[in-house]
Amino acid sequence: MASVTKVVLSRPVTFVTGNAKKLEEVRSILGHSLPLQSHKLDLPELQGEPEAISKEKARLAAEKIKGPVLVEDTCLCFNALKDLPGPYVKWFLDKLGNEGLNNMLMAYEDKSAYALCVFSFATDADTEPETFMGTTEGIIVPPRGPKDFGWDPVFQPDGYEQTFAEMPKEEKNKISHRYRSLAKVKSHLEANYEFDIPSETDANNDSAGNDVEKDTPKKRKREEDDEAAHEETKHKKEEK
Amino acid sequence: MASVTKVVLSRPVTFVTGNAKKLEEVRSILGHSLPLQSHKLDLPELQGEPEAISKEKARLAAEKIKGPVLVEDTCLCFNALKDLPGPYVKWFLDKLGNEGLNNMLMAYEDKSAYALCVFSFATDADTEPETFMGTTEGIIVPPRGPKDFGWDPVFQPDGYEQTFAEMPKEEKNKISHRYRSLAKVKSHLEANYEFDIPSETDANNDSAGNDVEKDTPKKRKREEDDEAAHEETKHKKEEK
Repeated sequence: MASVTKVVLSRPVTFVTGNAKKLEEVRSILGHSLPLQSHKLDLPELQGEPEAISKEKARLAAEKIKGPVLVEDTCLCFNALKDLPGPYVKWFLDKLGNEGLNNMLMAYEDKSAYALCVFSFATDADTEPETFMGTTEGIIVPPRGPKDFGWDPVFQPDGYEQTFAEMPKEEKNKISHRYRSLAKVKSHLEANYEFDIPSETDANNDSAGNDVEKDTPKKRKREEDDEAAHEETKHKKEEK
Repeated sequence: MASVTKVVLSRPVTFVTGNAKKLEEVRSILGHSLPLQSHKLDLPELQGEPEAISKEKARLAAEKIKGPVLVEDTCLCFNALKDLPGPYVKWFLDKLGNEGLNNMLMAYEDKSAYALCVFSFATDADTEPETFMGTTEGIIVPPRGPKDFGWDPVFQPDGYEQTFAEMPKEEKNKISHRYRSLAKVKSHLEANYEFDIPSETDANNDSAGNDVEKDTPKKRKREEDDEAAHEETKHKKEEK
């Protein structure tokens, strides 16, 4: 009954990433109700406000993919710096490391910050992309914990004594900016879109013929076995 | 004789700017040997290294203008921050002001920095743009002087006791990053290109039909009367 108001898409959603870990995380949260494939695209990275950057990225991606796309960006926003370094955090991290990020607040008493994840979904290049933001509030601290994932060592979420880097992955995933934005993506897509894709083969085809991780039954099994990530998502599934 | 090796352009160079002051400065330095018009374009601002940002901007501009273009970007690079904020300086200036720029170096003893101006010239969208960089070395200081031009109050060039904001304009123009990059543009264009533009009317026409400040005799007279800017350029002309 509800389906009559939904937009019907005849192609799976392409998540633009070359990062296998991100794809895994997104698939794990979105579940298999949504036909998803991934594609690495060399898109220009834009300057600007996070929402505008994300929308433009989705537009460019939809133009290249010629179908529905999902794009993701992450920002680290320091309140004392009026949300900077924000979308430019990766440059500061690359060049100055976590110590350098912490040093940016040396002149300020206010160490509060928020992690921001922005997803944009576009059905095609001519339709205004829809944007979903998730934030996690915290403070910036001298780096603590493993250094293998971005700026996690300097971000200590509110209500925790540990940095993102020190927290168990499943704990971080429950409160992360990425989880929160993806939860919005999921409920929006489920409420507003349905998929009518000609055949299983088509659904897993990559328009450009490369870089796609197929959504095979074997791959699904592997994901279901992945106990580390997204306990909360699993609980929700079990409740259904 | 030398002209046989030069590339002949049948259209004037479009300098991409909506800023009348910048256009005036560029015209004043490049002189009238180069047919120049201006056009304001709403181009995406990219993230990345300064040279790459500039080249991509020139490519996009040449694609839109369908003719030879000149684009300009300015960076402020702190040595202690491994050249950051660099191309993102405008965001830090907009949100945090000159005090905020100075505060970024609070954690570091090394206050040295350089101002960087990058011009790129592209004859068309399919030819690799040529890039010209000019730098001025200095130090970052607590803001001093008039606040009407960007980050000039925090930048004190080496060998001077004054910030860019405190210096007389003609003094700043002799040593500025913009002057130095434009001098390279000028000598390169004069050595490698010549213009054979059908008629005076065509030369001053804007391809898109708007936003162009015509290079009229009246305009030229106004520029020649402008004594404030580019003493050095004038001296060079007089020597010829």
